[in-house]
Amino acid sequence: MDAMQLQDLNTPAALVDTARMQRNITRMQQRMDALSVAFRPHVKTTKCIAIAQAQIAAGARGITVSTLKEAEQFFAAGITDILYAVGMAPPKLKQAAALITNGCALKIIADSADSASAIVAYARQHGTPFEVWIEIDTDGHRSGVLPKGDELITIGQLLHQGSPATLGGVMTHAGSSYDLNTPEALEAMAEQERSLCVLAAERLRAADLPCPVVSVGSTPTALSAQQLQGVTEVRAGVYVFFDLVMTNVGVCSLEDVALSVLTTVIGHQADKGWAIVDAGWMAMSRDRGTQKQQHDYGYGQLCDASGQRLEGYTLTGANQEHGIVSRSGEADHNIAQHFPVGTQLRILPNHACATGAQFPEYHAIYQKESGQEVGPTWPRFYGW
Amino acid sequence: MDAMQLQDLNTPAALVDTARMQRNITRMQQRMDALSVAFRPHVKTTKCIAIAQAQIAAGARGITVSTLKEAEQFFAAGITDILYAVGMAPPKLKQAAALITNGCALKIIADSADSASAIVAYARQHGTPFEVWIEIDTDGHRSGVLPKGDELITIGQLLHQGSPATLGGVMTHAGSSYDLNTPEALEAMAEQERSLCVLAAERLRAADLPCPVVSVGSTPTALSAQQLQGVTEVRAGVYVFFDLVMTNVGVCSLEDVALSVLTTVIGHQADKGWAIVDAGWMAMSRDRGTQKQQHDYGYGQLCDASGQRLEGYTLTGANQEHGIVSRSGEADHNIAQHFPVGTQLRILPNHACATGAQFPEYHAIYQKESGQEVGPTWPRFYGW
Repeated sequence: MDAMQLQDLNTPAALVDTARMQRNITRMQQRMDALSVAFRPHVKTTKCIAIAQAQIAAGARGITVSTLKEAEQFFAAGITDILYAVGMAPPKLKQAAALITNGCALKIIADSADSASAIVAYARQHGTPFEVWIEIDTDGHRSGVLPKGDELITIGQLLHQGSPATLGGVMTHAGSSYDLNTPEALEAMAEQERSLCVLAAERLRAADLPCPVVSVGSTPTALSAQQLQGVTEVRAGVYVFFDLVMTNVGVCSLEDVALSVLTTVIGHQADKGWAIVDAGWMAMSRDRGTQKQQHDYGYGQLCDASGQRLEGYTLTGANQEHGIVSRSGEADHNIAQHFPVGTQLRILPNHACATGAQFPEYHAIYQKESGQEVGPTWPRFYGW
Repeated sequence: MDAMQLQDLNTPAALVDTARMQRNITRMQQRMDALSVAFRPHVKTTKCIAIAQAQIAAGARGITVSTLKEAEQFFAAGITDILYAVGMAPPKLKQAAALITNGCALKIIADSADSASAIVAYARQHGTPFEVWIEIDTDGHRSGVLPKGDELITIGQLLHQGSPATLGGVMTHAGSSYDLNTPEALEAMAEQERSLCVLAAERLRAADLPCPVVSVGSTPTALSAQQLQGVTEVRAGVYVFFDLVMTNVGVCSLEDVALSVLTTVIGHQADKGWAIVDAGWMAMSRDRGTQKQQHDYGYGQLCDASGQRLEGYTLTGANQEHGIVSRSGEADHNIAQHFPVGTQLRILPNHACATGAQFPEYHAIYQKESGQEVGPTWPRFYGW
């Protein structure tokens, strides 16, 4: 049987350029190896077993997840070392405990005495050996306790009282690194993330509390850190695909973006210089992450079907299943000749995590001498 | 077995207030009956068989879909009269033809001579009796041919040449009605949508071309039209749930919004007046449709678990699986006491079509004397 071609795919479809993805995986892993830290990729970006396996094959140790459903799915696929990196709410303890009982080396996190107390109470009642990491707020962007505050020690003591729950370490995520765009600012943020998380670990140890793990990371800081002294592991997610937001942050180029949406031209408004395509916001997501960055790509950067960038053409508008393609600057009144009805195009996404989530599967694309070849379909899951 | 309660649900979860939904369905159907037009709901909002069946039980005649996958799924569930309301691209003709061959009364649309020619060529080659409606541009917002232009007649003639394809009518969607917010402007837009679509039909008939169907609609114009002379059917989608965008447009109240996301408090940043919840953009979608409207609800309006609105509290920030709840105006430094860890809350969405799409299922909620009762789980599908 001949290999599938792009023309055989229903559009819109999510394509993964496998060569780019593998290059991104290798780049990050080599960097982590050089910095002498373990790497724990965040699989919320892809929710795809095949891709997590490629990350582990390259050297990743364990994975990070954002939902307990992800933990269940990846554990069922044979991955046991899993960090659930969202603050544990008491109603989810039963679901987490079931994973641990079944053999998953699940780690959970807490950033309040209330949450830690609930975990300890459940552990005492059910004998569940929860390993708990304390979330540290190193940049003020979301969750976590302050590295210099009293609550850190209070939580540590709660978790180290001889209940079946144990204190496993500290973790942080400098998500505000997404708002930066110079190497200097990124390096400084990486150092802030490292130094404040290490400080939290040292304060716990000074209070005679155990803190074997010091876990930090985001794609921008992981790629910008100059040294990671005191850190034991790094986490990052979107690096596996990269996206337009990350090109604006400055940690990748457009030629590194491994995820794209294949779309078909379905009409035109030549007077306005518009081509209408069958990828709207249901395919791209509503993420407009580049809107406030230095280069606003609308809903995505246009490429031809082979992946060659069409300079100046972006998805400037999106309804549910309609996208509007136009050229920046002067309208392209010959757009119907440039991209006739039925033409396939590719769109690079603003935010790979959000765009991927719109699709039940990825199509792995391989570059062959004869052109683009469609390889296996990689399912991804969704929901909670 | 006792009925399920909200506390039994994993969060985030998509809830449908069944009483509100039924009221919304009845309101629209009664209006269409009074205006003497058929009603063809757009099921892209819900992608849910149970809800489409409720719309049909109330009097809807046929459905509108935005993807051929929707057509296939609803046809498999026994619904045969289906309009695929996105311009037909030649690569999709085979999939559409298979539906027709299997007995689906599928209607497809075209808004260019290129597209019409491709449809006719396929129909001649394969003997497929495509019924084609011509899309009319009545408000300049997206697709369609101009009602007064030459291309309308050209397309009509192409489709009426004795091939197995037939010209079934005209259709339009005044999507720019979403940008309005006064009854006067909405009534004027409804009249513009009606009159220009009827004009297109009359021009086709004057050219000795058949045009039995005149199909118009959007939720705002359907609820604002004062008369629909010459129109045979109306389409609308989001009215079944309504959402915060529609409250700003002015066609519903907050108490009509039937879709909400159930979430759990997972932490706090009391200094900032933040509660952190487990509904981020993966649950709410990235849709910020109210951002430029008169009332910006952030990522959603907060309610307590029973659905009572918490005035002034909105989801002001969203990461993938984290949402930030805060109060407008003065920060709520007692937010940890108001909403302790583990508290369930509900969030009304900006855009019901986008938020619903993030979930594999809805939970039907019934108001009982004893409180909110969780009824059946209604699956919804996604993908293409």
